[in-house]
Amino acid sequence: MIKRTLTVSLLSLSLGAIFGSVSAMAANEPIQPIKAVTPENAEVAELGKMLFFDPRLSKSGFISCNSCHNLSMGGTDNIKTSIGHKWQQGPINAPTVLNSGMNLAQFWDGRAKDLKEQAAGPIANPKEMAFTHEMAEKVIASIPQYREYFKKAFGSDEVTIDRITTAIAQFEETLVTPGSKFDQWLEGDKNALSQNELEGYNLFKSNGCVQCHNGPAVGGTSYQKMGVFKPYETKNPATGRMGVTGKEEDRNVFKVPVLRNIELTYPYFHDGEAATLEQAVETMGRIQLNHEFNKDEISKIVAFLKTLTGNQPDFKIPVLPPSNNDTPHPQPFE
Amino acid sequence: MIKRTLTVSLLSLSLGAIFGSVSAMAANEPIQPIKAVTPENAEVAELGKMLFFDPRLSKSGFISCNSCHNLSMGGTDNIKTSIGHKWQQGPINAPTVLNSGMNLAQFWDGRAKDLKEQAAGPIANPKEMAFTHEMAEKVIASIPQYREYFKKAFGSDEVTIDRITTAIAQFEETLVTPGSKFDQWLEGDKNALSQNELEGYNLFKSNGCVQCHNGPAVGGTSYQKMGVFKPYETKNPATGRMGVTGKEEDRNVFKVPVLRNIELTYPYFHDGEAATLEQAVETMGRIQLNHEFNKDEISKIVAFLKTLTGNQPDFKIPVLPPSNNDTPHPQPFE
Ligand code: HEC
Ligand code: HEC
Ligand code: HEC
Ligand code: HEC
Ligand SMILES: [Ca+2]
Ligand SMILES: [Ca+2]
Repeated sequence: MIKRTLTVSLLSLSLGAIFGSVSAMAANEPIQPIKAVTPENAEVAELGKMLFFDPRLSKSGFISCNSCHNLSMGGTDNIKTSIGHKWQQGPINAPTVLNSGMNLAQFWDGRAKDLKEQAAGPIANPKEMAFTHEMAEKVIASIPQYREYFKKAFGSDEVTIDRITTAIAQFEETLVTPGSKFDQWLEGDKNALSQNELEGYNLFKSNGCVQCHNGPAVGGTSYQKMGVFKPYETKNPATGRMGVTGKEEDRNVFKVPVLRNIELTYPYFHDGEAATLEQAVETMGRIQLNHEFNKDEISKIVAFLKTLTGNQPDFKIPVLPPSNNDTPHPQPFE
Repeated sequence: MIKRTLTVSLLSLSLGAIFGSVSAMAANEPIQPIKAVTPENAEVAELGKMLFFDPRLSKSGFISCNSCHNLSMGGTDNIKTSIGHKWQQGPINAPTVLNSGMNLAQFWDGRAKDLKEQAAGPIANPKEMAFTHEMAEKVIASIPQYREYFKKAFGSDEVTIDRITTAIAQFEETLVTPGSKFDQWLEGDKNALSQNELEGYNLFKSNGCVQCHNGPAVGGTSYQKMGVFKPYETKNPATGRMGVTGKEEDRNVFKVPVLRNIELTYPYFHDGEAATLEQAVETMGRIQLNHEFNKDEISKIVAFLKTLTGNQPDFKIPVLPPSNNDTPHPQPFE
C-alpha cells in the first residue's frame, strides 16, 4: 500500500511540474490548484447539463441526476444513503460529482472506469432511476427540440444511450471548483489562509493525510484500505474493491474520496455515518494513521479542510424542452 | 355564473385601460400581455429563491418546492398527481408556480388567500414535505449564512416561518413569463402569430373560452364549475370550492387555471387525466360550452395555446449555504 501511495505522490508531483501554470510554490506541495475546464465541445456539455437536470431519464419522471447530486448543495444529497425510485433506501453515501472527473475511476469501489461508463449506471439501476436505456432513448428522441440539440452536439439527431452518457460526462467534466481559499494560497497569496488554517494544513501534511489525499482534488488518486491500523466499525455491508477484483485483500478498500468542497458534502464516509468533519478527522487519525489527535489539532485540520471549498457551479437553470403527444408517460406509481 | 364571468371580463378590460403601457390593441382584448416584475425587495426575493430550492425545508432533506414545481419544467412536476414524502401519492395535479401571483387565490379550490399563506402549506403537509414549521425555522436558523441573508432582507437575523413564507412568496411573484409570441402579437407585432394561430385565438374568443380564461394569465380570475353542460367524469374525489365554502353549489367548482405556458404544464385538469392539449380542449368544448369542436378547430386552438409560452425563469442555480454541526439532521427513512 505504501508503495502504491508513493507512486501516486510522485505522479502528482510530476503532474505539478508538467502544468507550467502551477506556481513554484504549488509544485512543491502534494496538492495542486484546480484549473477551470473548457469543455472539449461546448454544445455537448450544454446538452449534458440539460440531461443531468432532466427527471425524464427516470421511470417516475421525478428523479434526475441532480436529485442526488444537487448542484446547489455541493453535488450531493447530504443524506446518509440516497433516496431512489419509490423511496428505496440506497446502499451507500452519494459522492459529489464536483471534480469527479479527477477520480482515477468512478464509484466508491471504482467499478466504472470513467464518467461516461458511470452515467449509464443510475439510469437503469432499479433502486435509483429505475428506467431502461431504451426507454430513456425513446423519451429523449420523442422531443424534437432535444433532437436539435443532439444534431448540434453530435452532427446528427440520433439519440442513443451512448450519446446521452457522453454528453452527461462531458458536462460533469466542467464541474470543477477552482478559486478556493486554499488554491489562492497555493497560487501565491500568502494572506489567503489564516494562521489557524495554515497550521491545519501543516498537520494534514506532517501526519500523513496527504499520503492518501493528494493531487488537485485532494483525493481520488488511489484505492486504500478503510481501517489500516484499526478496523472501521460499520453496519454497512459494502466490501469496496473486493466486489470488483474478487480478492480478499481488497476487502474494505475504497477509492480515497476527494476532499475538495468537503464542507458541503456531509455526511462522511461510504456509510454516511460521520455527521461532522471533526468526527471524520478523528476517525481518520485513529484508524488510518494510528494517531489520536487532540481537540485543537482536529479543529485546525477542520479549519484547513474548509478552505478547500471552491467556486460552486455558476450557470443558469436549464430550461428543458417539453414532452409532447409522442413522449412515453412517466410511471411514478407502477 | 355568467354574471360573475361578465364582471371579470369588465374588470380585465378596465385593468387593460388602467395599465397605460398596454397598447391600444391589447386593451381591446380579453387577454393582456404579461409585464416583467421587479420585486418589491430584491434581497427578500433572492432569499426566497434559495428557500424555494432548499430541500432542507422537508423532513427528508430531499424535497424542495422545486421538486414539484420544477422551474426547468414550466414550474410543475409533469406527473398526474405529485410524489410527496416517502413517495406518497398526492391527491391532485400540481399547478405551475409561474404567474401564480396573478391568481385570485391559491390552490385549485382557492383555500389560501395568497402566495404567502400558500407557502406555509406544503412544508407542514405530511404528504408533501412532512416537516413542521418549528423544525423548518430551526434548520434555517442554525445556518449563519442564512441568518446573514435574513438580516439583509428583513433587517434582523431572526428566522421565522412568517419570514420564510414571505420570502418564498416574494420570489414567486417574480416568476412571470413575458415575451410569448402571443404577447408580441398583443403588443403590436402582427407577424408574431401565424394565420393558424390567429384563427385559433379567434375560435378561443368566439366560442367563449375567454369567459373563463381571461386576464394577463389567461385564467386565475374566477372560480367556475367543472362540468357546466355535462358532468366531468373522474375518479378523483376532490370537490373543489365546496371544501372551502361548504356549499353544495360549489361542488366541482375550481379556480380556472392559468393557461400561460400551458404547453409545459401537462398533464391537464385537477386530476391530471388529460394527457394532451387536444384532449383538454375537446373536453372543455364539450362539457363547458356544449360544443363539439372538429379536429381542425381543436388543432388551431392548440396552436394558439402554444403561443402562450413565455420566457422561462432566467437565473443562476442558487448556491445554498451548508448545514453545520448545529443543524438538525434530515430524517428520510423515519
Ligand atoms: C438515487 C440517487 C442517485 C441518482 C439518481 C444518481 N446518483 Fe450518482 N451516485 C449515487 C450514489 C449512492 C453513488 C455511489 C454509488 C457507489 O459508489 O456504489 C453515486 C455515484 C456517482 C458518481 C461517482 C462519483 C465518485 O466519486 O465515485 C458519479 C460521477 C455520479 N454518481 C453521477 C451521476 C449521474 C450522472 C447521474 C444521472 C444519470 C446520477 N449520478 C444519478 C446516487 C445517485
Ligand atoms: C491510508 C489512507 C488514508 C489516510 C492516511 C487518510 N485517509 Fe482519509 N480517507 C481514506 C479513505 C479510503 C476514505 C474513505 C473511507 C470510507 O468512506 O470508507 C477516507 C475518507 C476521508 C474523509 C471523508 C470523505 C468523505 O467524503 O466522506 C475525510 C474528511 C478524510 N478522509 C480526511 C482525512 C484526514 C484529515 C486524514 C489525516 C488525519 C486522512 N483522511 C488520512 C484514506 C485515507
Ligand atoms: C410534493 C409535491 C409538492 C411540493 C413539495 C410543493 N408543492 Fe406546491 N403544490 C402541489 C400540489 C399538488 C398543489 C395543488 C394542491 C391543491 O390545489 O390542493 C400545489 C399548489 C401550489 C400553489 C398554488 C398554485 C395555484 O395555481 O393554485 C403554489 C403557489 C405552490 N404550490 C407553491 C409551492 C411552494 C412555495 C412550495 C414549497 C414551500 C411547494 N409548492 C411545495 C405540490 C407540491
Ligand atoms: C365555464 C368556465 C370555462 C370555460 C367556458 C372554459 N374553461 Fe377551460 N377550464 C375551466 C376550469 C374550471 C378548468 C379547470 C378544471 C379542472 O381541472 O377540474 C379549466 C381547465 C382548462 C384547461 C386545462 C388547464 C390545466 O392547467 O390543467 C385547458 C387547456 C382549458 N381549460 C382550455 C379551455 C378552452 C380551450 C376553452 C374553450 C373551448 C375553455 N377552456 C373553456 C373553466 C372553463
Ligand atoms: Ca458525503
Ligand atoms: Ca398540469
